[in-house]
Amino acid sequence: MSDKSLLSAPARRRLLTGSATALAAAGLGGFSRLAQASGAAPSGPAPKALPAYVGWKDANALIIHSSSTIETKRSAFGAGLITPVQQLYVRNNLPAPAPTILEQREDWSLTLEGVKSPRALSLRELKSLGSETLPMVLQCSGNGRGFFPSKPAGTPWQVGAAGCVVWTGVPLRTVVEALGGVLDGMRFITGTGGEQLPAGIDPLSIMVERSLPLKALGDAMLAWELNGEPITLAHGGPLRLVFPGYTGVNQIKYVKRVAFTAEETQAKIMSHGYRISPPGGKADPAQPSVLEMGVKSWINTPLPEQGELRAGRHQIQGVAFGGTEGIRSVEVSIDGGKTWKQARFTGPELGKFAWRQFALAVDLPAGSHALVSRAVDKAGRVQPEQRIENLSGYNNNSWADHGVTVTVAAA
Amino acid sequence: MSDKSLLSAPARRRLLTGSATALAAAGLGGFSRLAQASGAAPSGPAPKALPAYVGWKDANALIIHSSSTIETKRSAFGAGLITPVQQLYVRNNLPAPAPTILEQREDWSLTLEGVKSPRALSLRELKSLGSETLPMVLQCSGNGRGFFPSKPAGTPWQVGAAGCVVWTGVPLRTVVEALGGVLDGMRFITGTGGEQLPAGIDPLSIMVERSLPLKALGDAMLAWELNGEPITLAHGGPLRLVFPGYTGVNQIKYVKRVAFTAEETQAKIMSHGYRISPPGGKADPAQPSVLEMGVKSWINTPLPEQGELRAGRHQIQGVAFGGTEGIRSVEVSIDGGKTWKQARFTGPELGKFAWRQFALAVDLPAGSHALVSRAVDKAGRVQPEQRIENLSGYNNNSWADHGVTVTVAAA
Repeated sequence: MSDKSLLSAPARRRLLTGSATALAAAGLGGFSRLAQASGAAPSGPAPKALPAYVGWKDANALIIHSSSTIETKRSAFGAGLITPVQQLYVRNNLPAPAPTILEQREDWSLTLEGVKSPRALSLRELKSLGSETLPMVLQCSGNGRGFFPSKPAGTPWQVGAAGCVVWTGVPLRTVVEALGGVLDGMRFITGTGGEQLPAGIDPLSIMVERSLPLKALGDAMLAWELNGEPITLAHGGPLRLVFPGYTGVNQIKYVKRVAFTAEETQAKIMSHGYRISPPGGKADPAQPSVLEMGVKSWINTPLPEQGELRAGRHQIQGVAFGGTEGIRSVEVSIDGGKTWKQARFTGPELGKFAWRQFALAVDLPAGSHALVSRAVDKAGRVQPEQRIENLSGYNNNSWADHGVTVTVAAA
Repeated sequence: MSDKSLLSAPARRRLLTGSATALAAAGLGGFSRLAQASGAAPSGPAPKALPAYVGWKDANALIIHSSSTIETKRSAFGAGLITPVQQLYVRNNLPAPAPTILEQREDWSLTLEGVKSPRALSLRELKSLGSETLPMVLQCSGNGRGFFPSKPAGTPWQVGAAGCVVWTGVPLRTVVEALGGVLDGMRFITGTGGEQLPAGIDPLSIMVERSLPLKALGDAMLAWELNGEPITLAHGGPLRLVFPGYTGVNQIKYVKRVAFTAEETQAKIMSHGYRISPPGGKADPAQPSVLEMGVKSWINTPLPEQGELRAGRHQIQGVAFGGTEGIRSVEVSIDGGKTWKQARFTGPELGKFAWRQFALAVDLPAGSHALVSRAVDKAGRVQPEQRIENLSGYNNNSWADHGVTVTVAAA
């Protein structure tokens, strides 16, 4: 969700003026921190250490913006076919539920509605229905916000609020077919997160509930493993609803309800959050919602922070993904986009939702070099030079913004 | 290498009778531990905690046989497209070099011999020559030794001395071409590990040096990343020579020399180690060497240790790989191999050297069920029912040995 608060002003005031003791007693201390942290960005110094719920992550590979916003360093991606969970970004809309929800994973309950035979299914039952493995790019809607000159409110993510991960779970359509299919007239898939909400606040003002077009059913999955391990709390375990090709906010953590609905949810995160609003304007339900990802690429090697660069041959390397389409080709420029050369793919294609690794061998003489990459997806869509300006800094796939300048020392 | 000591009896005696203080002073305390641990298996209780050089691994996912032999629990593989390094098995032939070799990774030096223009190349130079990403199964030659009724000396690995990993590096043939190609008459690729050897012992008796047939050049790689991160010390960083389709001993850690040679190395690990010797016999250079892996599969779900199994529908899941060929199909039996059904693949194919995930939906009533899987590679080779008996318990790909019996409680 937007890093800007989705709480209405009165709701936020209620949260912030509630005594910390009362919040802590209700196990909701995290909400207070969240409300404080989400008011503006940057809001105070980032924590120096990883918060406990992601204490198992590799701090050296991460930029810690806040306790709920952590991104992968560009220099940590390496050749990066699959992003290890220890390096994967974190973006929590609300504080994670208590870890106790992981103690009985198999008993986690999901309600299915808007189907011929609505019912609740345990994770144990879901596992009996199927098991498929799905590599895909997981990317925060605001990834690349840090490159907007307008400095939108919210975490100034660079490239690292993204990773290529592997989910294992049951295709949502398999579950829906087992329940008799989608009811006539339903146009949306509405997923609801299992976060515990504080009392005294209109749930719609804060809950994580998103509605995706019915066409997203084709590839959607109810996932219980991330990179071959049970999903951690930070990443939405025990059960996450994932829609390959869509941005992170649409991947519902701790999913407790999937409803096929005639209309979009009225939750504020849908109606006003994650809209492409004009700069200086206000969010409005009539504006486009942040849904599918656009074609995008960036360079991970070489970078200035990777150490001294010597004159001579180098492999310019990066990753490219198409959102809902596979990648057809990637070009690289070492003169800031004046001239381009076709890069080669350097690893396997894991399906159309995963990223492709690319490289181009170039000779870099002494001096400064502006390295940029530009991807084309299999539908022929070209990664654009410029971002689309918007109030909250979403969907930045500008190749110019993602360039990197390196300096080769004179011999 | 074999878990049996490759040291000659006098050499071993010299090591063992050397005072621990002297060995420690030389930074070789590990050799003493190794020599003690490798005399027989099991030799004393396994350490309860992970040794320091792999302290970053996930102890809960691992079986710790000794400080240099650690395997992945079968129940930890999950759906397992790529095995996280935190769960990946460890098998070190000799104690790992000092971690200081990782401090200047780019300066690591590799000598190339048996080519038109022999020379040393730094890792920095190797990186300039290319970068490709290669998913492959990494498997210890003795994986499955624990299923041999003859109880061969050596670690009684079950299924977990294996993983599917992703290497990034430069193809060896690219480097060889840059150096003018292989000299005429050379029939082997001989790789030498960079372990520090103790003084006073014939290096050939202990060094890690293996010779592979020249045909292995086609797919060989000099790798510096494992699963997208710089290779750790435990897994052979800063540089490892990998031959996809070959067993673990052939994947040379800390590789310092690659030589194209007319003859096999005289190192004992080649001449007498890793030979398919008859049961009760002795290793001999005329016996077949342990090189390519055979077609193999096993089931990871359900397992008795994964908790109570209820009557009804289940997804029988596992992994299959062909060694040097991709997998064509996998069959599953729930009656110990009397009747078989074709399983489905449940994830992407990452190339012919990676494993494929498979699943079969079955209805399991109350009672005991003997679950087995049988893979066929793209060359038509069928995973055999029986292991080939041999002195040291190598190359076990028997489907019967890798079966698992589960019990479904009466309702």
